[in-house]
Amino acid sequence: MKFYDSKGLPNPDRVRIALAEKGALDQVEIVQVNLWKGEHRTVEFKIKNPSVTIPLFELDNGIAISETTAITEFIDHHFEGIPLTGIGAQERAMVHMMQRRGEQKIVDAIGAYFHHATPGFGAEIEINQNREWGELHKLKTLEGMAYFDQVLTTQPYVAGENFSMADITVFTGLNFSEAYPKVMVPADCKALQAWRKRISERPSCDFVKETNIQTL
Amino acid sequence: MKFYDSKGLPNPDRVRIALAEKGALDQVEIVQVNLWKGEHRTVEFKIKNPSVTIPLFELDNGIAISETTAITEFIDHHFEGIPLTGIGAQERAMVHMMQRRGEQKIVDAIGAYFHHATPGFGAEIEINQNREWGELHKLKTLEGMAYFDQVLTTQPYVAGENFSMADITVFTGLNFSEAYPKVMVPADCKALQAWRKRISERPSCDFVKETNIQTL
Repeated sequence: MKFYDSKGLPNPDRVRIALAEKGALDQVEIVQVNLWKGEHRTVEFKIKNPSVTIPLFELDNGIAISETTAITEFIDHHFEGIPLTGIGAQERAMVHMMQRRGEQKIVDAIGAYFHHATPGFGAEIEINQNREWGELHKLKTLEGMAYFDQVLTTQPYVAGENFSMADITVFTGLNFSEAYPKVMVPADCKALQAWRKRISERPSCDFVKETNIQTL
Repeated sequence: MKFYDSKGLPNPDRVRIALAEKGALDQVEIVQVNLWKGEHRTVEFKIKNPSVTIPLFELDNGIAISETTAITEFIDHHFEGIPLTGIGAQERAMVHMMQRRGEQKIVDAIGAYFHHATPGFGAEIEINQNREWGELHKLKTLEGMAYFDQVLTTQPYVAGENFSMADITVFTGLNFSEAYPKVMVPADCKALQAWRKRISERPSCDFVKETNIQTL
């Protein structure tokens, strides 16, 4: 299996952490793709993934899976280890609900700011920039931080009592937000920061400390 | 269980079809919410769903599930009947991948056009309109239609050999696109139209013919 990665970006980091939580990082070949150089826009890559996004997960039978939640569903059901997508109807629903909120309110929101209101991956990659849209999503990111802070005042993990892919999503989104477009988690988001410290201590998240975010 | 619905809009229609596929429509109480009148923006509703979106699914224990994929995960794992989210790691991944593409390329794209470049739900609801963003997403919707047409030239259903929630998503998105903002499926998308006719003949989709889309 191949995992097309771009270290330090939130969506591929979500896949890396999911694999690490399952103890399966050594079972995949990892291929680094440089998005600043547009390596995801080659004809070869577009055939594998018409959505032209990273991460991409390629199975030994040639099937290519894009979209991070889909890849996480594969990892969760293919490898042994702790469940990442919930068990039973209600927990699965809560994990998917909070996963989507983590995407919309943090990962996608800060992504919209990064791509539309900052240079993002550079002028050749960032066509169709819309500054007004980008600036709106900086505000949405800050609202999202406040929302998850509130959630984490009453429960230990983003989707409830158990660690799940929703924690991974919010965690990588916040790391990206602070490292790249420099939208910082407000100091008064104390529950969010305490949760973040706990998540960062999981062995699956060790690589975050080593990630070279100086590639910009 | 309560299903907060707004008939004729793609996301609540996705839940309605999922329930009908499971033969479970009579097991939920359906509450209509008028989005044109802002009935989803009341304080009571915001407590149930901080994301202020329809559909919402309320369990008998008080748990409220928002986000259509999450609700579909609940329905698929709670009720008997044909699987909607796939079976096994690979199929689950393909269904979730195509579900997300169906959202991004059709439902969310035509939604962005509707909300940003047309009057949408009206001036009081559509704050932060961004016409340039809306117009871009009309083009993205048309590109999405061409993409799914291509997919359906080589396989019977959106995610492969079996009907799934991804079919429901694309189907409701196309219906909305044609009924409300009047972005029509191009005549040369023959595989997409043939698939659409087949899906519309499923008993779960009967209600679409009766839906009063004159509420605008």
